[in-house]
Amino acid sequence: MIVVMKHNASAADIDPVVRQIEARVVKAHLSQGTERTIIGVVGDDRPIQSHNFEMLPGVEQVVRILQPFKLASRDFHPTNTVIDVRGVEIGGPRLAVIAGPCSVESRTQLLETAHAVKEAGADLLRGGAFKPRTSPYSFQGMGEDGLELLAEAREETGLPIITEVMSPEAVPLIAKYTDVLQIGARNMQNFPLLTAAGKTRVPVFLKRSMMGTIQETLMAAEYVLSGGNRQVMICERGIRTFETATRNTLDINAIALP
Amino acid sequence: MIVVMKHNASAADIDPVVRQIEARVVKAHLSQGTERTIIGVVGDDRPIQSHNFEMLPGVEQVVRILQPFKLASRDFHPTNTVIDVRGVEIGGPRLAVIAGPCSVESRTQLLETAHAVKEAGADLLRGGAFKPRTSPYSFQGMGEDGLELLAEAREETGLPIITEVMSPEAVPLIAKYTDVLQIGARNMQNFPLLTAAGKTRVPVFLKRSMMGTIQETLMAAEYVLSGGNRQVMICERGIRTFETATRNTLDINAIALP
Amino acid sequence: MIVVMKHNASAADIDPVVRQIEARVVKAHLSQGTERTIIGVVGDDRPIQSHNFEMLPGVEQVVRILQPFKLASRDFHPTNTVIDVRGVEIGGPRLAVIAGPCSVESRTQLLETAHAVKEAGADLLRGGAFKPRTSPYSFQGMGEDGLELLAEAREETGLPIITEVMSPEAVPLIAKYTDVLQIGARNMQNFPLLTAAGKTRVPVFLKRSMMGTIQETLMAAEYVLSGGNRQVMICERGIRTFETATRNTLDINAIALP
Amino acid sequence: MIVVMKHNASAADIDPVVRQIEARVVKAHLSQGTERTIIGVVGDDRPIQSHNFEMLPGVEQVVRILQPFKLASRDFHPTNTVIDVRGVEIGGPRLAVIAGPCSVESRTQLLETAHAVKEAGADLLRGGAFKPRTSPYSFQGMGEDGLELLAEAREETGLPIITEVMSPEAVPLIAKYTDVLQIGARNMQNFPLLTAAGKTRVPVFLKRSMMGTIQETLMAAEYVLSGGNRQVMICERGIRTFETATRNTLDINAIALP
Repeated sequence: MIVVMKHNASAADIDPVVRQIEARVVKAHLSQGTERTIIGVVGDDRPIQSHNFEMLPGVEQVVRILQPFKLASRDFHPTNTVIDVRGVEIGGPRLAVIAGPCSVESRTQLLETAHAVKEAGADLLRGGAFKPRTSPYSFQGMGEDGLELLAEAREETGLPIITEVMSPEAVPLIAKYTDVLQIGARNMQNFPLLTAAGKTRVPVFLKRSMMGTIQETLMAAEYVLSGGNRQVMICERGIRTFETATRNTLDINAIALP
Repeated sequence: MIVVMKHNASAADIDPVVRQIEARVVKAHLSQGTERTIIGVVGDDRPIQSHNFEMLPGVEQVVRILQPFKLASRDFHPTNTVIDVRGVEIGGPRLAVIAGPCSVESRTQLLETAHAVKEAGADLLRGGAFKPRTSPYSFQGMGEDGLELLAEAREETGLPIITEVMSPEAVPLIAKYTDVLQIGARNMQNFPLLTAAGKTRVPVFLKRSMMGTIQETLMAAEYVLSGGNRQVMICERGIRTFETATRNTLDINAIALP
Repeated sequence: MIVVMKHNASAADIDPVVRQIEARVVKAHLSQGTERTIIGVVGDDRPIQSHNFEMLPGVEQVVRILQPFKLASRDFHPTNTVIDVRGVEIGGPRLAVIAGPCSVESRTQLLETAHAVKEAGADLLRGGAFKPRTSPYSFQGMGEDGLELLAEAREETGLPIITEVMSPEAVPLIAKYTDVLQIGARNMQNFPLLTAAGKTRVPVFLKRSMMGTIQETLMAAEYVLSGGNRQVMICERGIRTFETATRNTLDINAIALP
Repeated sequence: MIVVMKHNASAADIDPVVRQIEARVVKAHLSQGTERTIIGVVGDDRPIQSHNFEMLPGVEQVVRILQPFKLASRDFHPTNTVIDVRGVEIGGPRLAVIAGPCSVESRTQLLETAHAVKEAGADLLRGGAFKPRTSPYSFQGMGEDGLELLAEAREETGLPIITEVMSPEAVPLIAKYTDVLQIGARNMQNFPLLTAAGKTRVPVFLKRSMMGTIQETLMAAEYVLSGGNRQVMICERGIRTFETATRNTLDINAIALP
């Protein structure tokens, strides 16, 4: 972290910043430039919240150098994460395909679709039993009956299944049925839900929020990882932008970013 | 709802659209223009999801005419909503001010702040006992102890209190202490939480998501309202845009929009 | 175009809308719904500006059905545009690659790069002689000397060249040298420049503005096309979004959109 | 400017960065942290483009400390800019109001409007004689006849006038008539136009681009200022965001930002 002082910041402004930094175990390192004084923080400053410093008098900006996540970073985990879901490898050299209906609507619909996607080459079967709906008047999903149909489809086709979980108290029920816990885009920062998913050992499929930065997405993954569940896959599903000709703007850059 | 057919759509494209519409109780009304055929839906089409029609062959676009919300609309509720919180009127001619610390950190901190904001003219005291944090390594709030301190601060100052609730199963606990249930921006589309809040009769303070359109915000309010809780206030707290010089962009237009 | 009247719009609101529509040669078609009156416009309403109607009393929204562009639309030009640039086909089945330095800085730099990109398989050589710079203190390009170096590089390598034009009065000079006129993202809505480029018969390479919708991009193409220059290629180069981890967000959907 | 090296950057990565910095007159200052090496630039690095460093091997990010503008900054010009337009003070304690029609359409329309806005308390009269239009089929303005009508309206009412200029070669003509040169949002980064406006001594009214950051807007002002024209007023007119319920999102924070 680097604290940049204002043009006209005095020693009376600089001293309290240094004291606040050093009260947090890390060291402060002053650098007097021609137009600005810069205070560098030496040490692991991830737990420090930068806005505590932004409010101090004389501070112009606070720049983070270290990413706030650890377990989700390449620094701490340089190799790719490969997850085994009932024998299907996700994150390895072969691309795994997840397919299936948006929501489970009936036994016939699900089983027919399951066979069709299997024949088309899919590796996992997806289907929503509990559905997040923007309208309270829309169909909210079949609930546990839908989970049972998914399990039946798995038995018939051999495809592992993935389904969405929407609240922390539903995690145990969903985890009993599913091979992968899906966390939807609107719940990417539902922290109690992330914490609950982190306590299971079921792989998590975390969808990027339509207005989540890449960094926030990795922080959401960090919630699950720091709970002890190291099996997290992240789904880039498009972000919200000014362009309305398409529903979302797929941020294809996010995939390549190291 | 209006379904606009493509330039070269044939009768074989148009007929299934009409049949799908009429299968949903509403009526279809065809209008043959010089360059496009347009199919209007006559009747209450709020429960119909437009993407079901967007996928049909020959359909160019689907335009909604009716807003998808009812209880949150001026059509159904033309007058302003005024909420009484222990004698403080919110939504009336006088502006009510809510103030207090971001999070409850200690008894001294809360009581001192409560007295200070009261003297400064605040009408309600806010403070977080359960905190949504982007980092799993940050302080997550004092929990129920924080709620008890808020109740003590209310007793001392007479200020009604407002505090955040983050998951559906926490609603009963928080509702026991607080005068207003706060739903945070990241939870604006946490539908199980909205449903749980809708079952209480505690006024709800719903913060607009940094990625929420005005329409989605009103739909979130509709979740609470349709549960029977008609006391919802909406907080415009800024949206996420390309501008990073400030943390959020306050969408001041949202306040004036009818 | 469809004009949706407010819930409580009276005949005194509806009549002026109808009169305004019919004053513009097209026909109005009333449709009385259960909750809204809708007025459809029958005929080519592309020249009508919708905000003239949005301001009339009783009007809730105006929805455009026809795209405002003609020459740039698939309705009027269903086949792909294929442009021949000195024997290099752009828009055909084979992908053409344009490569070269951001700006022409010296003879050695340009010629070395030109040979390198040719060997690497590029089809056209690019290089800026006049550079749009966000800072007035940055290098602004070599000007006409740079154009001469580009012509020399074309002679040496046989690669057609493309370079940027920044103002209408510079079009004749640049057009004398270049095989393709590049219009930069910041100039996508520089209408005098588009008009000037439309008067030439030099193919135009139009870069999408970082905040241009797909529709606005096609309207910018329409400016060039309506001037009589039918050789326009559009470059998707990324849009500006809230994500700052990458410089722009490539809107890959824009390529697939019909 | 601060260059942050990657976790695993070696001396072979760091040396070229230091050499590149010192080739540009400024000094490099190394700081070895526990997890990252940071290289600070000591001196005025405004002319250096950060992307030249971002491309070097081993570099993780480049952080600018100094704003890239000088004349537009509070560091160099701490007091408010006050501009006198024929006796009307803009930027002083009294708010000046500019009003008038979008475009000059006829003598009657303009004179009637001019008298009306004067009676309503306006300080300046605006009206477009050359209009930027997204569609080539829309009315493009009255041209010089419109300028003459504006001059006549000024004579009749005493209100100073402001009108838009769209291309560098039109600056002398417009400057002959108008009291303030308006540069439209779509031209905020039309650098030849900014340069031309900077050569006049006519006050400039610069509208923020719907895609312009606050920093880019100040850089656009810098173009005019660095040309010697120190009379620039900036207009916050709303930015483009995901919210489409209103035409733009007024960035009211931009006004308060120091």
